Amino acid sequence: MIPLDPLPEPPPRPLAVVAMGGHAFLQEGQRGTMEEQEQNAERVVDLLMALVERGHRLVITHGNGPQVGNLLSQQELAHEEAPSLPLDVLVAMTQGSLGYVLQQALLNRLRERSPDRRVMTIVTQVLVDRDDPAFDDPSKPVGPFFSKAEAEARAEASGWTIREDESRGWRRVVPSPRPLEVLQFQMIREAATAGHIVIAGGGGGIPVLEDEDGRLSGVEGVVDKDLTSSVLANRIGASLLVILTAVPQVYRHFGTDAQEALGAVTLEEIERLAEEGHFPPGSMGPKVEAVIQFLRGGGARALVTDADSLPAAMEGRAGTHVVGRI
Amino acid sequence: MIPLDPLPEPPPRPLAVVAMGGHAFLQEGQRGTMEEQEQNAERVVDLLMALVERGHRLVITHGNGPQVGNLLSQQELAHEEAPSLPLDVLVAMTQGSLGYVLQQALLNRLRERSPDRRVMTIVTQVLVDRDDPAFDDPSKPVGPFFSKAEAEARAEASGWTIREDESRGWRRVVPSPRPLEVLQFQMIREAATAGHIVIAGGGGGIPVLEDEDGRLSGVEGVVDKDLTSSVLANRIGASLLVILTAVPQVYRHFGTDAQEALGAVTLEEIERLAEEGHFPPGSMGPKVEAVIQFLRGGGARALVTDADSLPAAMEGRAGTHVVGRI
Repeated sequence: MIPLDPLPEPPPRPLAVVAMGGHAFLQEGQRGTMEEQEQNAERVVDLLMALVERGHRLVITHGNGPQVGNLLSQQELAHEEAPSLPLDVLVAMTQGSLGYVLQQALLNRLRERSPDRRVMTIVTQVLVDRDDPAFDDPSKPVGPFFSKAEAEARAEASGWTIREDESRGWRRVVPSPRPLEVLQFQMIREAATAGHIVIAGGGGGIPVLEDEDGRLSGVEGVVDKDLTSSVLANRIGASLLVILTAVPQVYRHFGTDAQEALGAVTLEEIERLAEEGHFPPGSMGPKVEAVIQFLRGGGARALVTDADSLPAAMEGRAGTHVVGRI
Repeated sequence: MIPLDPLPEPPPRPLAVVAMGGHAFLQEGQRGTMEEQEQNAERVVDLLMALVERGHRLVITHGNGPQVGNLLSQQELAHEEAPSLPLDVLVAMTQGSLGYVLQQALLNRLRERSPDRRVMTIVTQVLVDRDDPAFDDPSKPVGPFFSKAEAEARAEASGWTIREDESRGWRRVVPSPRPLEVLQFQMIREAATAGHIVIAGGGGGIPVLEDEDGRLSGVEGVVDKDLTSSVLANRIGASLLVILTAVPQVYRHFGTDAQEALGAVTLEEIERLAEEGHFPPGSMGPKVEAVIQFLRGGGARALVTDADSLPAAMEGRAGTHVVGRI
């Protein structure tokens, strides 16, 4: 195992980790052109300025679902022309491309307001457990839809696990193992503590396994970006974890007549609601799990909201706030 | 313009920038599968250990020609399925993927010898001049070969400049502007000075322009990776620039009966040989230009050799050494 450093003391200015969905770069109905992704990044960056202007040190993580999906389609269609690369390498590619788009939008915004702040994107590997049960049960759909016959041919040729995705067709499914460690956390902490805005852990990080001799190798899988953000936030001593999602708040009794938005709750309250099954696995479940993990690991406060509500949430007037240690 | 910091003092332990060709990841006749790229990265990393073991702080830059070529082919073939992204974004992707491959190979090698050394890849933008004459004369071929008719159709549809490439077909050509500044050099310097091995400036960096208001935007072009490495080496106060290429030494009267390998030469000597036309623009010219620029900018020593000769060159027994200030 890679040796674990002791938990660091929080830095003098508050350090926040903000996790953005891959859909933050791509709005409903968009295909993912560069113009669209740039405009969306600029919009999100405007909203993140609420944090920067309060003097928070900032580490930004992001999803990559639609972008890695496009890469998988392209690799698939062109596999006779150029070798298809494994999923871990495609995740690394989206860390480069989305990191660049976000970094450029941040630099252009900061130029007006805080020209002394610098921005860097760090290619991030995340260690997962070889014995994670997710490897026996691949369940995360990735890439294009196929007919049943096409999907079966691919499964035969490439060793894919395939699954029917609702009524839209068949897709490849990959394991989604839990993140154990963010391999670059020390350097992310150093850079953020120095005052740089750091983009890291894109797409949940590039999943890697460690063999008996400590040798690392990539694995075809997808790590939940919110869980990775939570591990990273604890390891760098962040006091605040912000999870940006598609809805302004977390709800109990979601989708029923008794639906009720959560404004502020304690760690203990949200643990109880999670046990009672208020947060379904396919939607709010992993986000709440990431929040609980962060607060149990020593985090002070977590916020779940959508990007548009972030400035109001920073004033305590929107979002779901979960409070841990003081 | 982005404000330029004064040139830093060299750090206490010598800092080296090593520029690797994109072909270091891909040997003659290979197509670029992940297995091939991993094996090649491990081979190069073994050779780089000669530098690490002398206690050099290390910044590694790399080319991306074959890899960005594969991405261009894939984007091209799948353009109806997923939007094609501009070349600057594809360069960013290869920074992610090749950074990851190299970073993993380094971590696996260091684990045995120097487990306390850390490795990070930084997504790197490079500022180029809007008025660079290269924009009026795109000359760097990229991506797949086309028939004349196909190439003309692409040029019509996408605004490409195309050119016949020897007798192998028609290709898109893009500008190759000079690098003015590496936007992340301060953070690269900080990380390298802290003792981390840093991978940066991949593919020559992502080329960006700055408009009248200081706003950055990407540009479709390719920056020479050796020139970018030279700018970066000066900006971070490196004393040594190593350019790894396909041949063990630099030659004068190359390809003639009078061909003579250069062992050690002064800055003044190589400037004179360059003026006399010993280094053709398409091959050794840009590498020698990068060396001259580095030494004029305060660098102490530059080495041009192939990866296999690196350990012997470190002993003064191979390669071409060019000496600047002491």
